[in-house]
Amino acid sequence: MKTVQLLNYALDSWTPGGGQLAEIASAIDGSPVATTSSGGLDFGGMLKHAREVGGPALRKLTFHERARMLKALGQAIMARKEELYELNYLTGATRKDGWIDIEGGAGTLFSFSSKGRRELPDAHVLMDGALEPLSKNGTFVGQHIYTSLQGAAVHINAFNFPVWGMLEKLAPTLLAGVPAIVKPASATAYLTEAAFRVMIESGVLPTGAVQLIVGGVGDLFDHLTGQDVVSFTGSASTALKLRTHPVVMRESVRFIAEQDSLNASVLGPDAAPGTPEFDLFVREVAIEMTVKAGQKCTAIRRAMAPAQYLDAVQEALADRLASTKVGDPRAEDTRMGALVSTAQREDVRQKIAELEAAGARIVAGDPAAEPALAGGAFLSPVLLRADDPWATQAVHDVEPFGPVSTIMPYRDMDDAIALANRGKGSLALSLFTLSPDAAQEFVRGAAAYHGRMLVIDRTNHKESTGHGSPLPVLVHGGPGRAGGGEEMGGIRGVKHYMQRTAIQSSPTMIAAITGQYVPGGPKHVIDVHPFRLKMSELNIGDTWETPSRTVSVQDIEHFAEFTGDKFYAHMDEEAAKASPIFEGRVAHGYLILSFAAGLFVDPDPGPVLANTGLENLRFLTPLYPGDSLRVELTVRSKSIKSEETGQVRWAVEVYNQKDELVATYDLLTENVP
Amino acid sequence: MKTVQLLNYALDSWTPGGGQLAEIASAIDGSPVATTSSGGLDFGGMLKHAREVGGPALRKLTFHERARMLKALGQAIMARKEELYELNYLTGATRKDGWIDIEGGAGTLFSFSSKGRRELPDAHVLMDGALEPLSKNGTFVGQHIYTSLQGAAVHINAFNFPVWGMLEKLAPTLLAGVPAIVKPASATAYLTEAAFRVMIESGVLPTGAVQLIVGGVGDLFDHLTGQDVVSFTGSASTALKLRTHPVVMRESVRFIAEQDSLNASVLGPDAAPGTPEFDLFVREVAIEMTVKAGQKCTAIRRAMAPAQYLDAVQEALADRLASTKVGDPRAEDTRMGALVSTAQREDVRQKIAELEAAGARIVAGDPAAEPALAGGAFLSPVLLRADDPWATQAVHDVEPFGPVSTIMPYRDMDDAIALANRGKGSLALSLFTLSPDAAQEFVRGAAAYHGRMLVIDRTNHKESTGHGSPLPVLVHGGPGRAGGGEEMGGIRGVKHYMQRTAIQSSPTMIAAITGQYVPGGPKHVIDVHPFRLKMSELNIGDTWETPSRTVSVQDIEHFAEFTGDKFYAHMDEEAAKASPIFEGRVAHGYLILSFAAGLFVDPDPGPVLANTGLENLRFLTPLYPGDSLRVELTVRSKSIKSEETGQVRWAVEVYNQKDELVATYDLLTENVP
Repeated sequence: MKTVQLLNYALDSWTPGGGQLAEIASAIDGSPVATTSSGGLDFGGMLKHAREVGGPALRKLTFHERARMLKALGQAIMARKEELYELNYLTGATRKDGWIDIEGGAGTLFSFSSKGRRELPDAHVLMDGALEPLSKNGTFVGQHIYTSLQGAAVHINAFNFPVWGMLEKLAPTLLAGVPAIVKPASATAYLTEAAFRVMIESGVLPTGAVQLIVGGVGDLFDHLTGQDVVSFTGSASTALKLRTHPVVMRESVRFIAEQDSLNASVLGPDAAPGTPEFDLFVREVAIEMTVKAGQKCTAIRRAMAPAQYLDAVQEALADRLASTKVGDPRAEDTRMGALVSTAQREDVRQKIAELEAAGARIVAGDPAAEPALAGGAFLSPVLLRADDPWATQAVHDVEPFGPVSTIMPYRDMDDAIALANRGKGSLALSLFTLSPDAAQEFVRGAAAYHGRMLVIDRTNHKESTGHGSPLPVLVHGGPGRAGGGEEMGGIRGVKHYMQRTAIQSSPTMIAAITGQYVPGGPKHVIDVHPFRLKMSELNIGDTWETPSRTVSVQDIEHFAEFTGDKFYAHMDEEAAKASPIFEGRVAHGYLILSFAAGLFVDPDPGPVLANTGLENLRFLTPLYPGDSLRVELTVRSKSIKSEETGQVRWAVEVYNQKDELVATYDLLTENVP
Repeated sequence: MKTVQLLNYALDSWTPGGGQLAEIASAIDGSPVATTSSGGLDFGGMLKHAREVGGPALRKLTFHERARMLKALGQAIMARKEELYELNYLTGATRKDGWIDIEGGAGTLFSFSSKGRRELPDAHVLMDGALEPLSKNGTFVGQHIYTSLQGAAVHINAFNFPVWGMLEKLAPTLLAGVPAIVKPASATAYLTEAAFRVMIESGVLPTGAVQLIVGGVGDLFDHLTGQDVVSFTGSASTALKLRTHPVVMRESVRFIAEQDSLNASVLGPDAAPGTPEFDLFVREVAIEMTVKAGQKCTAIRRAMAPAQYLDAVQEALADRLASTKVGDPRAEDTRMGALVSTAQREDVRQKIAELEAAGARIVAGDPAAEPALAGGAFLSPVLLRADDPWATQAVHDVEPFGPVSTIMPYRDMDDAIALANRGKGSLALSLFTLSPDAAQEFVRGAAAYHGRMLVIDRTNHKESTGHGSPLPVLVHGGPGRAGGGEEMGGIRGVKHYMQRTAIQSSPTMIAAITGQYVPGGPKHVIDVHPFRLKMSELNIGDTWETPSRTVSVQDIEHFAEFTGDKFYAHMDEEAAKASPIFEGRVAHGYLILSFAAGLFVDPDPGPVLANTGLENLRFLTPLYPGDSLRVELTVRSKSIKSEETGQVRWAVEVYNQKDELVATYDLLTENVP
């Protein structure tokens, strides 16, 4: 492979950096792979380009349009994944490791695309929570909304997942309508650059939406503002340097950090040797030590077991690790490849030495051994043991970022919780137990210190996604040492790139601002039945008013007989009166719903295909025999899912003859667009 | 009034500080009011006490128990409010100003109490969002939860609202189950101390739940951890000093800042002189300048009007301000009292001079005038004007924290948005317009820079809560210069003191951890009908299984005739078949709901009083003529509202004869506890 100079992508052009070039070496044999530099880039200009060109272009798109863009990006990656797998080997990773990175990255795009279309409106403004009543007569109400930040996102990524690490941040950022500047870690920047190039060449992204810096960020931070977001993954020391940058502090720049983490896994008190949970625990620890050669921020660094089971854990783990074939990641029978660089290997050896100095001892593996190819950054898995974890503080502080873990005993559940929390904040914590009581106690005691927790047992392990796998639909991050940041988590992650604002005004103005009907907002009474209109012909606020229908005591009795629902409040005047709620017999709630539908449904085939659901139903005023009801059916929002199908959300308001609200609910229908 | 030494409340004892005492002077006449010192306090010990005594005691309580505690605290404040009003005058505030502080503070406790009981479960763990399916067979699922942080909250408060400023932070903190250490600003610490004393003497709070520091915080910050939260209100310079504290940075301590803010109010392009919106705008600006003598972080510092209306705005404002009686806050006809101190007055004068130096000119009021009592910190309202706001950067940067505002012209809506955003982040922004289009354009263009926005017009002003009033149910805070923090906002504010954790496990374990039934979780089939059981006798997961009932084509036709719902999918085999969804005629959704109720309802009077609502209904499988249905009715959660009433949430699962889910929903009933 020829050594190439990686290019930056700035202001929508591929640009070689000037000045001194840094060389990146192959993890497998140390041969040169590429050179990089970002010298001479106009970093302030890149931020300006993102804010003034990329941001406005993205904000013009609706959430659904952005979601479709993510899907197209994922498809572009998948179509050219083999090019990426070739480069993946040079990072020391096996194909399986690369699958997490490359296909996991594309999968994250698909997941956000799908969540975006299902959970976000086809609009520019996201409503947060319900309308807050702020006044007696309802002329003044509150509504929280999210709008896109008007700055740029700066993504500073770690070396270990050059593709996924970029995409898991880009997906929520772009879905939020915010442009991004990506800065990969140098050691694997060639793979990031290749994946980035695939996205650019797909032609899917608007101008200015993404830029790439291969090399240092220069004076970029000097140009940040309070509308920008820095999303950082890497070491605590680098995070500290960046988050204390005077401009970040002065401008209250959002800083999302995901950094060092001494993740733990705990063998439950019930999980004695011989139980399935014991075997699952040993397997999980071994996997987490060796996948990606242990270079995962979520890997298990501390493995805790009841004191009496610790020897058995050690023995089983040592056995498993001994049979893990370390070698050339391109070879089919290799289970673990190389670390990313010989420098990284030296760092891991140094950390192992620190742990030993603090009192832990090596019980399996040899850090000095150099298996496989000469010049490559290979290292055997190393298992340490700390018999007194309260006296060996280093095991809770020092993170060897490689195939290394420390086993340690605990006395009882309180001790296990305290030890897990002793890491001062982690990304992932797991417990292997069959006992719901143990799970409850452990999670309630430890959750405040950990961003993600797994409880694994014989019933769920087959479908478990594993201790070390962040998922796009779950938050990834952790408090304290883990950086205090939060990423992904479906739409939760999108909100990190948006601003929440409380809006106070009349329902009319709230409707105009959000583009949705809100109760009390303007309605336009239409004279064509809305079931006869295609989605494109339906406007927000369009309202169909039905005639009214009187409900007789015979109706109630008939409904009771027919359905079998003879609840006393419907059937027995005296008993109903005696209830603290009713003044006499009342109509069934389901009768009200059914009669309401009878009033507003238009029978003939048309664009409305089916009633698929109903939400937020509240019965507000009892309906007594002799009362009548009528319905106002209003288009609250609509969302086109595909060329064939879409969803309309209708606000249904059922009134009695005194114009009191009897019931309100949202009706969902599947429609032809 | 005798000068007293204020006491600290540390480790559940009232403690005088040692060493040098600082003296606090009355704002009205400069006479001494109190002395303070926190010298000699064991700040590390106070944090430890909060974490080891207060936290565990609060976490033992459920959300509802904590909510009731807040209500009792609010009642205690209200019962002794006159003591607080007496001290309020000494801060320079009128009774009306004091109402915002004292009764507004109690009202915030009541609001959080009410939200806590209505929107939080009567439990210790808060579920966030829906169950995330992570596996094909459903043995492994995800659920986000919130649990109480295990550290302490440190509240550093501003001088301007000594009671509300304490309570608006205590309410969400205590509701979250987190103990607090309150540090008021010295200038008005005597009023905070008095209100704090009322709370302690109410006997409502568990040991260690709250502590008070009157004076400096010493080495407190050196002892912070990643489980603690600092919630700061005050100047940007102090915020910067605290948030860059090495321990805050190193431990990723959550830091919520609410700081300087150049809030703006904008007269809409349509709001010409003579319109109600013009008058409302002038009135609002004048009110915001004079309430609390303009010492409000949300006050309007920049008032923007279309260039052609600026003279009219100036004239109307000058008229209003000229008639504002400044004087002794104890006098009934006083409209505006004193600033908090003569030092504060000097600071305001200095800032006015900075604005003048930058090119703004005074058009009403005289900063040198000293109305009212000698020795008091009185100042007339001062209105400035900047004719070229793009050339007068200081008006967007310099915040005179007193009765001061600057009027300025704008050209068009884009210019108004850009000027509003030029403040680089604010707490509150308002627009006076009758045009929904202008409101939409303005809010979408500016929301990313502002924490709260109001749109006021002739239809909603009477019920408006005003530009400057943060509300407990809405978020308070803003991006960028405003500090990037967020407080209150109902339950949103509670979450700032909790940790979100993604839990991955089986439904059985999720149910054990959250104390709620989740789909797929364990059910206990009971043989007494659950409508016969009181809430105390019902257990989470208790399930009633009904017999099954077959649905005939006659049933469907009968239902259609009876209700009037003759949608073709129910009535016309051919048309139904032609739909992309159905294979033939199907039962009505409402028939399914009605028959389901007929199967599970127990008719006789009992603890279930009424069906009050229904949520998250989804129809999953069509029910064809000849199919049968049966119901599993499971207790999902329960919540006792009072001695007379409570709510049970039932998971309703409707199955067909093939055990396929036909429909699922949550049913809400009002119950006797």
